[in-house]
Amino acid sequence: MQDYQSVRDQSVKICSSLEIEDYIVQPHDFVSPPKWHLGHTTWYFETFCLREFFKSEPFNPHYHFLFNSYYESQGEHVPQGRRGVCSRPTVSEVLAYRRHIDGRMREAESMIATRDPESRETWRNVVEVGIHHEQQHQELLYMDIKHILSHQREQPALAGAPNDSATETAARTWREFRAGVFETGWSEPGFAYDSERPRHRVFLEDFRIREGLVSNAEFHEFIEDGGYQRPELWLADGWAWVKASAIRAPLYWTAPGKQYSLQGEREIDPGSAVAHVSCFEADAFARWKKCRLPTEAEWEAAFGEEPCAQLWQWTNSAYLPYPGYKPFPGALMEYNGKFMSGQMVLRGGCLATPEGHYRSTYRNFFYPHMRWMFSGVRLCDS
Amino acid sequence: MQDYQSVRDQSVKICSSLEIEDYIVQPHDFVSPPKWHLGHTTWYFETFCLREFFKSEPFNPHYHFLFNSYYESQGEHVPQGRRGVCSRPTVSEVLAYRRHIDGRMREAESMIATRDPESRETWRNVVEVGIHHEQQHQELLYMDIKHILSHQREQPALAGAPNDSATETAARTWREFRAGVFETGWSEPGFAYDSERPRHRVFLEDFRIREGLVSNAEFHEFIEDGGYQRPELWLADGWAWVKASAIRAPLYWTAPGKQYSLQGEREIDPGSAVAHVSCFEADAFARWKKCRLPTEAEWEAAFGEEPCAQLWQWTNSAYLPYPGYKPFPGALMEYNGKFMSGQMVLRGGCLATPEGHYRSTYRNFFYPHMRWMFSGVRLCDS
Amino acid sequence: MQDYQSVRDQSVKICSSLEIEDYIVQPHDFVSPPKWHLGHTTWYFETFCLREFFKSEPFNPHYHFLFNSYYESQGEHVPQGRRGVCSRPTVSEVLAYRRHIDGRMREAESMIATRDPESRETWRNVVEVGIHHEQQHQELLYMDIKHILSHQREQPALAGAPNDSATETAARTWREFRAGVFETGWSEPGFAYDSERPRHRVFLEDFRIREGLVSNAEFHEFIEDGGYQRPELWLADGWAWVKASAIRAPLYWTAPGKQYSLQGEREIDPGSAVAHVSCFEADAFARWKKCRLPTEAEWEAAFGEEPCAQLWQWTNSAYLPYPGYKPFPGALMEYNGKFMSGQMVLRGGCLATPEGHYRSTYRNFFYPHMRWMFSGVRLCDS
Amino acid sequence: MQDYQSVRDQSVKICSSLEIEDYIVQPHDFVSPPKWHLGHTTWYFETFCLREFFKSEPFNPHYHFLFNSYYESQGEHVPQGRRGVCSRPTVSEVLAYRRHIDGRMREAESMIATRDPESRETWRNVVEVGIHHEQQHQELLYMDIKHILSHQREQPALAGAPNDSATETAARTWREFRAGVFETGWSEPGFAYDSERPRHRVFLEDFRIREGLVSNAEFHEFIEDGGYQRPELWLADGWAWVKASAIRAPLYWTAPGKQYSLQGEREIDPGSAVAHVSCFEADAFARWKKCRLPTEAEWEAAFGEEPCAQLWQWTNSAYLPYPGYKPFPGALMEYNGKFMSGQMVLRGGCLATPEGHYRSTYRNFFYPHMRWMFSGVRLCDS
Repeated sequence: MQDYQSVRDQSVKICSSLEIEDYIVQPHDFVSPPKWHLGHTTWYFETFCLREFFKSEPFNPHYHFLFNSYYESQGEHVPQGRRGVCSRPTVSEVLAYRRHIDGRMREAESMIATRDPESRETWRNVVEVGIHHEQQHQELLYMDIKHILSHQREQPALAGAPNDSATETAARTWREFRAGVFETGWSEPGFAYDSERPRHRVFLEDFRIREGLVSNAEFHEFIEDGGYQRPELWLADGWAWVKASAIRAPLYWTAPGKQYSLQGEREIDPGSAVAHVSCFEADAFARWKKCRLPTEAEWEAAFGEEPCAQLWQWTNSAYLPYPGYKPFPGALMEYNGKFMSGQMVLRGGCLATPEGHYRSTYRNFFYPHMRWMFSGVRLCDS
Repeated sequence: MQDYQSVRDQSVKICSSLEIEDYIVQPHDFVSPPKWHLGHTTWYFETFCLREFFKSEPFNPHYHFLFNSYYESQGEHVPQGRRGVCSRPTVSEVLAYRRHIDGRMREAESMIATRDPESRETWRNVVEVGIHHEQQHQELLYMDIKHILSHQREQPALAGAPNDSATETAARTWREFRAGVFETGWSEPGFAYDSERPRHRVFLEDFRIREGLVSNAEFHEFIEDGGYQRPELWLADGWAWVKASAIRAPLYWTAPGKQYSLQGEREIDPGSAVAHVSCFEADAFARWKKCRLPTEAEWEAAFGEEPCAQLWQWTNSAYLPYPGYKPFPGALMEYNGKFMSGQMVLRGGCLATPEGHYRSTYRNFFYPHMRWMFSGVRLCDS
Repeated sequence: MQDYQSVRDQSVKICSSLEIEDYIVQPHDFVSPPKWHLGHTTWYFETFCLREFFKSEPFNPHYHFLFNSYYESQGEHVPQGRRGVCSRPTVSEVLAYRRHIDGRMREAESMIATRDPESRETWRNVVEVGIHHEQQHQELLYMDIKHILSHQREQPALAGAPNDSATETAARTWREFRAGVFETGWSEPGFAYDSERPRHRVFLEDFRIREGLVSNAEFHEFIEDGGYQRPELWLADGWAWVKASAIRAPLYWTAPGKQYSLQGEREIDPGSAVAHVSCFEADAFARWKKCRLPTEAEWEAAFGEEPCAQLWQWTNSAYLPYPGYKPFPGALMEYNGKFMSGQMVLRGGCLATPEGHYRSTYRNFFYPHMRWMFSGVRLCDS
Repeated sequence: MQDYQSVRDQSVKICSSLEIEDYIVQPHDFVSPPKWHLGHTTWYFETFCLREFFKSEPFNPHYHFLFNSYYESQGEHVPQGRRGVCSRPTVSEVLAYRRHIDGRMREAESMIATRDPESRETWRNVVEVGIHHEQQHQELLYMDIKHILSHQREQPALAGAPNDSATETAARTWREFRAGVFETGWSEPGFAYDSERPRHRVFLEDFRIREGLVSNAEFHEFIEDGGYQRPELWLADGWAWVKASAIRAPLYWTAPGKQYSLQGEREIDPGSAVAHVSCFEADAFARWKKCRLPTEAEWEAAFGEEPCAQLWQWTNSAYLPYPGYKPFPGALMEYNGKFMSGQMVLRGGCLATPEGHYRSTYRNFFYPHMRWMFSGVRLCDS
């Protein structure tokens, strides 16, 4: 298990160069204010560890309403789109809340040692999920901060952020695979989310998959070839989205040859991998290339041994339960399972994924029109 | 190939006991007026057969706009939600249009015999798709007419309609299957949609699947047990739908113990299979039963030899391309492929499916909140 | 009092050249299907005369729900925007309903003679309002039929309709008035709506008002001068409407130099009065001309002796109660008073106003963005 | 003319006990973040004084976009509903902007003395409007801060705010007036908005008007008598609003007997005047009392000599131009005139109106469903 406190500290550190004002705003419903992330990840430990195991009194009775995300079993909570209306508690109060709960967690760790082995095991699991949960929100913090700052007229940079304006793409060569039964999913003793389990067999027909991600230059060709104006390249839902939202380029391509990045406005590097595209755009690009997106099983067969990548890669697999899927027990059953509808899987990790958080069986998921995550395009072919 | 004229006549016959007024209205965007179905299926033959192979002049220049459904390659068309605003052409003019095109198709059949073999083959394929397309719309006619008549205060019956108020359910026994490689999809010489091909291998882990569909009595128990009020039973998108649409029972359950059917208002028969449930409801019910919905591959492994059922059965498989999928050629590429996003597969056929239209590899698909099709619940288990 | 039966017959006659299909559709919420008008005006007599005075049984229990427009005191009714979903009752059934109620009204007229004088007086008033109500709906029938037919691709004409494609405009001379106290509103013994009463005094400062309405040629100049692109000419709500609805010309100006009229597509006659403009457009035009719209008191002071005009004329008066206003008694209190919010007054009558329906104190009213009534522009100046 | 700097300082002082976070959020489109008010009022002086008369360089090129409210002549601006998305500039930067512009204004005042008399006169007028504009925003600051703080779970008070939880109501006696010609509007040499001019004559019929405003106790009776459930008491638009927004009490009545005030949560004082009601509620209450709301001319005839009140009072007059109305010249023509559509006039001033800002001819205006201003109910009768 990773160290609780160092993971906790990292969340605060990511935000440390923000202005107070930046912690508060919510440009769209799908973005959460940084302050909310700092409160919510703390609420996790207060609710599922301290309250559950020690019946602790709430730090502040309003926080249970304000910092619950979507756990219906935990009662009413502020609607997702109204997080940006909460000026109170202040950032400073939320940081105090974090310190308080961290202190209580340290005490709890010593007290839990006196409990029976089953309780100790459950505690350990809930804390471990909490640490990984915190790390997921660290990646979300980068996504949401980037979105918030991109909405400001002065387009400020985020000091200390990973470099997202220049990424590597490997060669355009293909890896080839022969049909057969493959194993997929997590079976090791260490931590993995419920949705990555159980390891099971899948049959894959012949396929090949490209070594390097699609580059900005390749995507620019697609645009130049009228890619955003040709319905025959698009899924019907994607085409409706392109028209309704007047989409004409990847997110953060702000002007010809320019993009917004965590380093501020930068030239678009033709050789870097295209980023911040939706699954609809990835799919249209692949069709234009007379290719397709990989399934997640194909992806895992091909890249199951590789380290965390710089960009997530859209697959054409819906986020659905593996055969034999069992959700986390208790209130954490809501962690993943209830989102298995309408969303698509991304694989591979990205430059904003915290160290120690990634596994090659990791199933990230978003709705197919979303593109504020660090997402790129991997091509596949039969 | 089925007989062109007898399939064409059947569409008109389904509507023959309607009042003129019933052909026109559109209670929701997803419902089309019967008049539109009669025009659209005719437009198919005019556009993809007569115009394509014989450069025929349009019967009426407005019809190309009014009766195109969603073929972007065919230009602008009336928005789906505005079909119910078109009082013109009249029903009588649309019936004349049908007779005219049917006459031209008979002439065309004799003329095509003089063409080269490849043209004859293409012609035959496009006509065959057109006949199956017409049959799909016959099932849609029953769905849409039921929806339209259910919106009338007097709740009229549809004379000559199949009996949808009392269906059979087989025993509650289970069929068991051992893990292994199965084949799925169509490989026979006869007709199948592009999305059913190619036949390919899948690996299935152990599963069992219930013989009989879920009954009204079982679903009533779910309701009595607070099924519609318990978020832990629902997918997140499903729960949002239940709350936003104030869903409390299957569609057409109009009053306690009563349902609207094509025979008018009827008692709900406890032993009949529950119908008109969304995928969200089917999934919540299955979770309440500590079961799950089958995947489409499991369904096909279990019921691949059976004839057309009385109700479609939701699977928990997203409607996605099979490995090696190739869309129909030409303009018909839009027929299926572009809808492979966000929709779920139903299997099995139903009482409104025309004879000769069904195959055990048939993949029907709808968004998971939809429920005006004749849809039931099949349980599965690992 | 006008003759009941001849007014009733006129409503049916207006629709007599429609196809059955045209009676049913509702292109926008503000338009009602002709069938609904025929049913609703009949429901008035059934509800406020036969049921109120004779406790008559309902002709059909569903009609009370289907044909009530907005009388909250009469219970639930079909939402305005769902009138176009009702295929039943059929047109033929509604015509039978009309004949039945007309027969009952004839019987009632003879029976009422035996009642006490106060009842006879009340009856007479309610019938008289009913007759004027029917005439209001005759004008609405022309407005709604025009809108419905204009939405059809073939743009059919309405046989027997008044000529709305060529209207007269008087000279561009001005009538001048000196400041003083004027009387406005109805005080004669004959019929007038409650909102036209009581006659009362207003003080008007000096003003002048133009003899002739604004012509198509003048309005075309406004367009050519960028009228629809210049925010400084528009009220803020009007400018928001122009942008949101992409307004660029009067309603029914379908192509350069062309308009849709009840005679079908016609050339726009430069000398005719511009019609089908909203209050926002009228106001912007007036500002462009360095004039303004008249108030309704100014209008009445100037044109109070004139007969019914060819086009209604927007005033810049909000539809608000006159000092001492008393609504009609009983359920008819909802007839006018509750609409005195957010709407603007039009004066003068139009070519679709039935003979005998108009008075110079008549206050027509619509929301300022509406323009499917026969509305023109009268200029005024201080 | 009031003193520029002391008015300017007052805006900052109103906000001085807020947390930084409170300056940023925007709970609804009609509310502006306090930071925005501080920026916008400064932008007024920069744009219409410094830039117009001295061609000064912009302090920051982004501010012209961010702090323009609705002046179309000044180009594009941030949409009203997106003001709460702007974390930048920070509060501290906006305060620096204020200080900078105030310094430049001091310099400008001395330089303007060397200009020709006409320029000096224009300058003086534009500065004077700017000072009154700043004061209008001071009242808006109280309205918006109250709304923002009321949305916080902890319901904080605003230190230094006027007491809005206990107001006086005078006796329930009536002032009576006889019919005649009255004068209304501003004609004095001092400052007034364009919409208050010119002074002109109106004719009023007999009326009486109540001395004291409607109390919380009286409004509570209305609620107890089913006022919010009885459609016959409401304007049609008001009833639609009550149903759509589930209105059941004045704004800020948070629990039985409790209200949110600028002093935090307080008991509702029965003897105080009811506040934060919409025009729809005021109108329904008046109808329930068998009274009506006054017109603005009646109000001015009755209370034209009185000082600023504690609550604004809804009139039943639409906000429309007075006869002979001339908008302010130049860009300030957009200040008032373009809002003369769909809004209702309030009269009397309120506890949040800055000293020296009020005149008895003052015409405040809002849409009839709005109620976050300090608005009460004055009864009138014929």
